[in-house]
Amino acid sequence: MLSKLFAKRTKTENPSRLQGLFPESNYADNISFGGGCPDESLFPSQALQAAYQKAVGLEKSHSFQYHDVKGPAALRDYLANRARQQGIANASADDILLTAGGQQGIDLVAKLFLEAGDEMAVEAPSYVGALAAFDNYEPVYHEIPLEDDGVNLDYFEEQLKQHPAIKLFYTVPDFHNPTGITMSLAKRQRLVALAERYDFVILEDTPYRDLRYHGESLPSIKSFDTEGRVIFLSSFSKILSPAFRLGWLVASPEIKEQLVNLKLAADLEVPYLAAGTVAAYLADNDLDEHIGQLKQVYRVKLDAMAKALKTYLPADAKISQPEGGFFFWVELGDEIDTRQLLLDEAVPKEHLIYVPSASFYPNWDKNNGLRVNFTGSSLSQIDEGAQRLGRILSPAQLQMAI
Amino acid sequence: MLSKLFAKRTKTENPSRLQGLFPESNYADNISFGGGCPDESLFPSQALQAAYQKAVGLEKSHSFQYHDVKGPAALRDYLANRARQQGIANASADDILLTAGGQQGIDLVAKLFLEAGDEMAVEAPSYVGALAAFDNYEPVYHEIPLEDDGVNLDYFEEQLKQHPAIKLFYTVPDFHNPTGITMSLAKRQRLVALAERYDFVILEDTPYRDLRYHGESLPSIKSFDTEGRVIFLSSFSKILSPAFRLGWLVASPEIKEQLVNLKLAADLEVPYLAAGTVAAYLADNDLDEHIGQLKQVYRVKLDAMAKALKTYLPADAKISQPEGGFFFWVELGDEIDTRQLLLDEAVPKEHLIYVPSASFYPNWDKNNGLRVNFTGSSLSQIDEGAQRLGRILSPAQLQMAI
Repeated sequence: MLSKLFAKRTKTENPSRLQGLFPESNYADNISFGGGCPDESLFPSQALQAAYQKAVGLEKSHSFQYHDVKGPAALRDYLANRARQQGIANASADDILLTAGGQQGIDLVAKLFLEAGDEMAVEAPSYVGALAAFDNYEPVYHEIPLEDDGVNLDYFEEQLKQHPAIKLFYTVPDFHNPTGITMSLAKRQRLVALAERYDFVILEDTPYRDLRYHGESLPSIKSFDTEGRVIFLSSFSKILSPAFRLGWLVASPEIKEQLVNLKLAADLEVPYLAAGTVAAYLADNDLDEHIGQLKQVYRVKLDAMAKALKTYLPADAKISQPEGGFFFWVELGDEIDTRQLLLDEAVPKEHLIYVPSASFYPNWDKNNGLRVNFTGSSLSQIDEGAQRLGRILSPAQLQMAI
Repeated sequence: MLSKLFAKRTKTENPSRLQGLFPESNYADNISFGGGCPDESLFPSQALQAAYQKAVGLEKSHSFQYHDVKGPAALRDYLANRARQQGIANASADDILLTAGGQQGIDLVAKLFLEAGDEMAVEAPSYVGALAAFDNYEPVYHEIPLEDDGVNLDYFEEQLKQHPAIKLFYTVPDFHNPTGITMSLAKRQRLVALAERYDFVILEDTPYRDLRYHGESLPSIKSFDTEGRVIFLSSFSKILSPAFRLGWLVASPEIKEQLVNLKLAADLEVPYLAAGTVAAYLADNDLDEHIGQLKQVYRVKLDAMAKALKTYLPADAKISQPEGGFFFWVELGDEIDTRQLLLDEAVPKEHLIYVPSASFYPNWDKNNGLRVNFTGSSLSQIDEGAQRLGRILSPAQLQMAI
């Protein structure tokens, strides 16, 4: 009844991209390849507990007071140093904005650049949470297909010629969500050149960047940026813990200044209890050593999932070959509707959850793909879950389901 | 250079409402009446520390995992019960949305209702953080003047007749920020009737509601709501601690459902380490007993500030008479520019900070008022700070300053 007062952007007729993304399942033997959860047995819980005690000990009752929108200087110094190590020359603590997880970084960048009708480009498919954030600013989307070495830049350049008003491009270049694809070095360089030539800004979202299990790391897109056109976004969620809701971005002063205003209007400040704890953890522990431990475990899981999918899925299923990150992507025949299969077959019959492809596309119009996560499951769950997925996708079963 | 790509809403020519609101001061004897800070000696630090340990003990390593956008059921049950005790009939845990402080509640409601050019009404003056949030959605503001018993509803109804598209009204009815004014019972009832008649939604922002030091508590506006037109917003920031960044709102299912989508797109979830800690605190402690202790201390401070302002300020200064909350409001002759006085006199010469009035008005056009906080200062700072303010505002001094 009151919905007639809602802003136009509130498209009540569309499903929510994030609410209900994972169907409920109460089966005791349910296996979820759905979320993007780290393996929680790898959280350095004791060190994080000690870090919390240290953070509160440092500020005592002031720990529970208001703080500010900047967050601890030591944490921003650490992140600036890390950015410089990753080839982002001259990054300083003043260039760092701490955000409520990477998600808030995406939302604030969207809010800074996008007005209803503004044009932006996204990889197709794209991270569902990013699309959920962008949707609220009502952009006109241009979808750029992914290839095995990243976004199709020939196609993108054609789009830029036809649509010179494109002002923002969102990409997950390292172990892309949902596909696991990594953008090649040559494409990273050419992408920056395109941004300069066609005057747009790149949001480089890199939550999985440090989690490479095979092959050699590539320079960030931001490392080729000379005009302040690239916003580098990352997060502690995958490499330390999602519970602190702590992301960060590196942006030029012109952009960062405005993002600070938007952050203030959104939630006023960086929570000290979270940011102070992470700062204390980083002072007393070696994050890269911890990441090394994660990589050892996740490498085994990635290899197990690759093998299991190849073993159990039909030969014509196209399976991505990620070298890191959290996800595999599976593409099936055009006649397959993976959302219907999820609700009718996977959840009730096989007790398996994955994420169907539609919500990863701006217009919800590709139904024949699915994303599977491997970090949050045990090795036996990976094997068993892939077997179940294989049964769901077997030609005989599909015939019945369609 | 890249600012030409920013959304129209990014008004780089305007000052930021929140960034730089409090000028820096490094004087050792600086007194700040600026922020809205609780007295941090009153935080129940030990109980909060114990609550954190309990929360982490409950979930162990899962504490550091992703959680969800709902937050702990026990906390929402507690808040629903509290809402019912305050006259919000039938409030259930499902009607509660937990937010990143009250600020996020304001921002999400603005995002749900306001499109560029949409019309809304605000009290004049209004909470600066709310205006900062609203600004980003580019509403057309209608300013409704405040009287000693709350917003001028005769004037408001005239505006509603002339501008029937007004869809949202924002109010702080209890110990208003910045003025300290409380809306009368009769006006609360009539306001709901106006909302029904002229078809708008009320955002009732009540962070100070429980902090009444004199007189009798009044029913919330939401308690008169029969059509789901009132969104009741509150926060733990003033009654427990701002560090958890935990607010909550009570809204009808139609509205709450959409706010959940917007919350997901903004930052994905309610942080467990914060919400779980507050839930554990509430399970083991009596919040109302704690609030009773706050009120004892703040009542003495309020009385001291009232007396000091009356003693030291010029006789023609109009000083509000709050019965609770955090703030007094002072209005001076139209020729006074309190921002200029702050920067030229108060900070450098008297080592005193207050908040000048301009940023509390949608159009920054009233310069002759100022807000002083009394909860964050000691009794001696209250007396000394009011003396300093009296010197700055003395007729002789003002003559020189103008």
